[in-house]
Amino acid sequence: MKTKLIALAALTLAATAQAQQAPKPEQLIKWRQSAYQTIAWSTARVKANVDGSYNKDDAARAAGVIAALANSNLGVLFPAGTETGKGWRDTTVKASLFTDGAGVGAAAAAFSKEANELARVTQGGDVAAVKAQLAALQKTCKACHDDYRNN
Amino acid sequence: MKTKLIALAALTLAATAQAQQAPKPEQLIKWRQSAYQTIAWSTARVKANVDGSYNKDDAARAAGVIAALANSNLGVLFPAGTETGKGWRDTTVKASLFTDGAGVGAAAAAFSKEANELARVTQGGDVAAVKAQLAALQKTCKACHDDYRNN
Repeated sequence: MKTKLIALAALTLAATAQAQQAPKPEQLIKWRQSAYQTIAWSTARVKANVDGSYNKDDAARAAGVIAALANSNLGVLFPAGTETGKGWRDTTVKASLFTDGAGVGAAAAAFSKEANELARVTQGGDVAAVKAQLAALQKTCKACHDDYRNN
Repeated sequence: MKTKLIALAALTLAATAQAQQAPKPEQLIKWRQSAYQTIAWSTARVKANVDGSYNKDDAARAAGVIAALANSNLGVLFPAGTETGKGWRDTTVKASLFTDGAGVGAAAAAFSKEANELARVTQGGDVAAVKAQLAALQKTCKACHDDYRNN
């Protein structure tokens, strides 16, 4: 009996650990919609700075968020099994994202490169340079959306 | 006529700039729900590492996202006029967040402090220290939720 209880407890713990490490598809979809929306917010924040009265600290903070997310391996939010489903809303991901590993890897690398460069450039005070780098970053956003997102 | 057109163009530009700098309440609510959901994702990611097979790089990336957001002045997502409304869903913020500036400031500072410490600790390989610091961070999450969020 005691052995059985211990075995049951071990199974429960293992199941709990696995549940923690394998969130449900709808949870992953909600998280990735949130992560990209956070990038959209931060991009809009940098843009508001370069289009309006420039605040170096505000722009750098926003760019820091984009870079941290770009460096965080967002691919973990797109495991097999999340091709369809609903997070905050129905996912808009294209099936090709789950099959075109090389293309997705290149798109992610381009995004990370430009995001880190934006974080670097916002540390200086050259607004024109920030504006140019924001445009370079946004090109990588659009390229990935064109290829891997239904609009 | 020409002067009038220029004046009109200037007004339009000013309105555009203002629109960019003053997103609508529903946009701000969606962004803040996304930002906090991104923090929740990253916190779960650190937790999965300390509870399971520890991957230092993965934990550090997740902690980097939390720190970047904690340092980004999330208060800009809670301007007057966003006390109620719907982003991804109806906001759960309490009215007190908009009136208790000192309390909110202290809660935000505590969160930032523990988030930056977590980012620092994940750079090392001491899993027990990461686990302890994650708990310290989560205490600041809970304290703020208790005071300023309807559950």
